[in-house]
Amino acid sequence: MAIFRQLFDDATSTFTYLIADENTRSALLIDPVHEQYARDRAVLDALGLTLKYVLETHVHADHITGGGRLRHETAAQFVAGKGTGLSCADRLIGDGETLTMDSITLEAIATPGHTDGCTSYRWNDRLFTGDTILIDACGRTDFQQGSADRLYDSIQRLLSFPEETLIYPGHDYNGKRVSCVGQEKAINPYIAGLDKAAFVAKMHALNLPKPKRIDVAVPANSLCGGADVGRVPGETEAA
Amino acid sequence: MAIFRQLFDDATSTFTYLIADENTRSALLIDPVHEQYARDRAVLDALGLTLKYVLETHVHADHITGGGRLRHETAAQFVAGKGTGLSCADRLIGDGETLTMDSITLEAIATPGHTDGCTSYRWNDRLFTGDTILIDACGRTDFQQGSADRLYDSIQRLLSFPEETLIYPGHDYNGKRVSCVGQEKAINPYIAGLDKAAFVAKMHALNLPKPKRIDVAVPANSLCGGADVGRVPGETEAA
Repeated sequence: MAIFRQLFDDATSTFTYLIADENTRSALLIDPVHEQYARDRAVLDALGLTLKYVLETHVHADHITGGGRLRHETAAQFVAGKGTGLSCADRLIGDGETLTMDSITLEAIATPGHTDGCTSYRWNDRLFTGDTILIDACGRTDFQQGSADRLYDSIQRLLSFPEETLIYPGHDYNGKRVSCVGQEKAINPYIAGLDKAAFVAKMHALNLPKPKRIDVAVPANSLCGGADVGRVPGETEAA
Repeated sequence: MAIFRQLFDDATSTFTYLIADENTRSALLIDPVHEQYARDRAVLDALGLTLKYVLETHVHADHITGGGRLRHETAAQFVAGKGTGLSCADRLIGDGETLTMDSITLEAIATPGHTDGCTSYRWNDRLFTGDTILIDACGRTDFQQGSADRLYDSIQRLLSFPEETLIYPGHDYNGKRVSCVGQEKAINPYIAGLDKAAFVAKMHALNLPKPKRIDVAVPANSLCGGADVGRVPGETEAA
């Protein structure tokens, strides 16, 4: 058994996932949140884990990644999808490439659409879908080179995995935490019964407000969170 | 990796779970449905599996178990919770006892309340909860020695597992397939924010109609489905 934790940031409804090798105590985090640095370090410490990798599903617009500070203050490497073009990353992982950490192997699946650099990660029968598939929803496509047409193809690709394949999204705003391919096929209103034309029309009609933090988050995340992102207000140096 | 399948019977909205050892090809089924005998045999055959065990989460009132016929026509053993008192079972598994099939180990957790013999099964970080916890719901407690008081305690016991622990229910009527402890704690209307008194009052106020098949299903399931349950209408001998 590996160690697996699903963590949640209330302020931005963001899931962070921790996967670790039970024997070697090596750990990775998917989509850490800058403001949750102290929480993430506390979880790692409590479990006696050493952080080796931080993986990003994409360049987030709603929060600053915790990966910058985590990389700066641990030996962790920063990994993002090749499509992000992030020159600050330690590794840009391409479609179909794997990241192996002791007994843990993750496969990268390029899933552009929400952003052009979106990447999902598969670990055994678990998919970490970022903002490509959300439970009963999907990521928006109206900024950051978003493309409803490409998102449709990426969603279909994820749905080609067996029905039981678990879906762990990047966010949820309603208390949901996990789904699977079969469930999303059956009842996700952005998937069930929609062909590409209907999906694209539905996405184009959404007319969503601009994300509150995009003007801060995207520049910071384009620098991999940056070591210079600084402390969270109110946090002490020792935290 | 083990082999895992979640199967669904449309007529009764019942989930059947298949777990198998990838190397030895030994398989078990949790809660097979009599009318899905041909489907279950076809799945086993397609995967090259040998059925070793059929496990029941309880004596069902809504469908006849497929376990009787499967036991009769394969070498599978019929396993049910000790609380069922089923003298026809090959094994009555008690709370905390395990069933080991090659690399697969299931732990029985007595979860009385929906019926007095209800048992959940834990396989690694996956709980098969039968009708104890359903997604956003729970089993009714108004027949078969049901007890809202005991069901509350059983639900709390299942919720004491880590938040990430997956919940695979016995039924779903709305297209949902999987949840986890954290999600049910947060948003299940029969769990979130209810103490025992409020839960019991809510259950007693449900006033549900009598299950359509109870007068056929419970006697048949009290005989472990019975080899004499016979063929499904319209099915040929060879099926």
